[in-house]
Amino acid sequence: MDRDDLRVRDVGEFDLIDRVRAVLPDSVRALRGGELGIGDDAAIWQPTGGKAVVITTDALVENVHFRLDWTDWASLGHKMLAVNLSDIAAMGARPRVATVVLGLTGNEPVGGIEALYRGAGALAAAHDVVIAGGDVVKSPTGVTLAVTLLGEVAQGRALRRDKARRGDLVVVSGTLGASAAGLALFAGQVDQGASGGLLVAAHLRPNPRLALGNLLFDAGVTCAMDLSDGLLSDLPKILVASGVSAVVDVDRVPVSPSVRALFPDRWRELALYGGEDYELLLTVPEARFEGLRQHASEVGATLTPIGRIVDRARDSRLELRTDGKTFEVDPGAFTRSGRVNVEDALIGE
Amino acid sequence: MDRDDLRVRDVGEFDLIDRVRAVLPDSVRALRGGELGIGDDAAIWQPTGGKAVVITTDALVENVHFRLDWTDWASLGHKMLAVNLSDIAAMGARPRVATVVLGLTGNEPVGGIEALYRGAGALAAAHDVVIAGGDVVKSPTGVTLAVTLLGEVAQGRALRRDKARRGDLVVVSGTLGASAAGLALFAGQVDQGASGGLLVAAHLRPNPRLALGNLLFDAGVTCAMDLSDGLLSDLPKILVASGVSAVVDVDRVPVSPSVRALFPDRWRELALYGGEDYELLLTVPEARFEGLRQHASEVGATLTPIGRIVDRARDSRLELRTDGKTFEVDPGAFTRSGRVNVEDALIGE
Repeated sequence: MDRDDLRVRDVGEFDLIDRVRAVLPDSVRALRGGELGIGDDAAIWQPTGGKAVVITTDALVENVHFRLDWTDWASLGHKMLAVNLSDIAAMGARPRVATVVLGLTGNEPVGGIEALYRGAGALAAAHDVVIAGGDVVKSPTGVTLAVTLLGEVAQGRALRRDKARRGDLVVVSGTLGASAAGLALFAGQVDQGASGGLLVAAHLRPNPRLALGNLLFDAGVTCAMDLSDGLLSDLPKILVASGVSAVVDVDRVPVSPSVRALFPDRWRELALYGGEDYELLLTVPEARFEGLRQHASEVGATLTPIGRIVDRARDSRLELRTDGKTFEVDPGAFTRSGRVNVEDALIGE
Repeated sequence: MDRDDLRVRDVGEFDLIDRVRAVLPDSVRALRGGELGIGDDAAIWQPTGGKAVVITTDALVENVHFRLDWTDWASLGHKMLAVNLSDIAAMGARPRVATVVLGLTGNEPVGGIEALYRGAGALAAAHDVVIAGGDVVKSPTGVTLAVTLLGEVAQGRALRRDKARRGDLVVVSGTLGASAAGLALFAGQVDQGASGGLLVAAHLRPNPRLALGNLLFDAGVTCAMDLSDGLLSDLPKILVASGVSAVVDVDRVPVSPSVRALFPDRWRELALYGGEDYELLLTVPEARFEGLRQHASEVGATLTPIGRIVDRARDSRLELRTDGKTFEVDPGAFTRSGRVNVEDALIGE
């Protein structure tokens, strides 16, 4: 049988696991110091003394969160780990150990699954993460990937959603909207043009802000989260958790020139609602912002203030200002579900 | 809308999460001491000082591992946690924190998802486990449940698969075959009879052997695993990991009288290959077995020696003896995949 024709159903579960192990970098494959990785009932990891364990889990489902004709396997492996690394970054923690549940139909090319782990392995190696096992199950109609990632952080000091205080600036890192714009390009909603590649890359291979998360932690920032569902879905989570309201100046939300150029009628919507940017959203007392901004620029991160935390009236509210007008975010944004949805992209907006 | 008609798609993700939290016992819902549970980017857990973290993950997929017309939601919630607790038991560890990835079509009754968490919550409370969050995703064609469970164990002392030594007895807890027999009853392969209820319960609500796992650990046992895939699939994993072979006396494998009575032609096959019994398989030096057996009986566990570890020749081999005959297990058993498969049950054996 031709190597490229080999499908998951043609090899045993053990054979598949052996192949996957073989493509992982050494540092990703094995826990150090006699600890157990892939191959027993469970993996074992010794956290650094005095640190608390940070636990996050995120799943990607075929035709909901990704399409196999829009992504390559290595990018998918990168992304399944990146979305979890982003949560660890948003806690100000250091990632350490991942497990992966692979749901496979059996029809996947074995080379594709190897590429998936090469993509995940390269990102894991870059952030000193061990992939310590998981589960392979049959998934009747599509690929499902569920990653659980453990990190560690100094006890009592993680970046939380419930620490926003009146007067804090609301700040985002990087630019917003590129990932949703990349997804729209796949959906054929506009011609791609020269700058489309960057947007597609932003969607397929998001870059979790771990260095920035650690910098925020070291600088004493206490309130942050990652932007996975879109600014207008995610900021309300901070407001509700902290019992505050916010006013955001929409015209200050940073949007890349490529998004504005390719989506002249939709760039603002993509930036506010798009999601999957995996930038960090934080609040910080105004007096400390400028120092933080300069410090962040040293690790290549831009920080942009977009609004301010204010007292809440009866409920937490998010007020948007633009062109001298003011309006409140539809409360539906508070319960908007999930990440950017491939199905939504397919049926348009 | 009638309460019973309410479907997952009718409520928002946040509403669903609130409802799920509300049905969990207090001890299961919240981490103690200011640690974070459901509701931030990640959960935080402070392990006991000096303990190592034990990590396991197992997924259950609709129409592969369960059928919604064969189980009730509460039993499914019990089982999704039980299969992971069993892995922690097999390490001699104590379970502490779980996360759950729920893949839902949207058509599930909200009351069913609440019942799922009631079932998981009751088992979690019984074993002092906190459910600290997870992810809810859309699953296009069926329910997928992926649980990651963290436990803790004294550093360097977990029960492992690679510790079987020549001369050790091969020992199983409880009886084997009841779960596979219960599954066969659902598939209508025999009439159920009076004793069928116990077998069905063994399949739907397995009882993870945590007390026994801890007892083995305290008694200095070093080699154990849980029986999830069936004795003749699981024992080879110990043999390969430990670099040994084994001889098993098939007539000594403990099988419950109900399985023998209802499946006169198949009870042996169910016991050897059936899987999902979630009993423990261990090896122990013969001189220590009798004391261990008596000690285990004090926590209500029976231990039965079924064979012996021997040196391997070129490869690890498993030799079965019965009725004076000897035969080797089909090496295919070494790569037999997964848990008892509902699809296999449907197409018969």
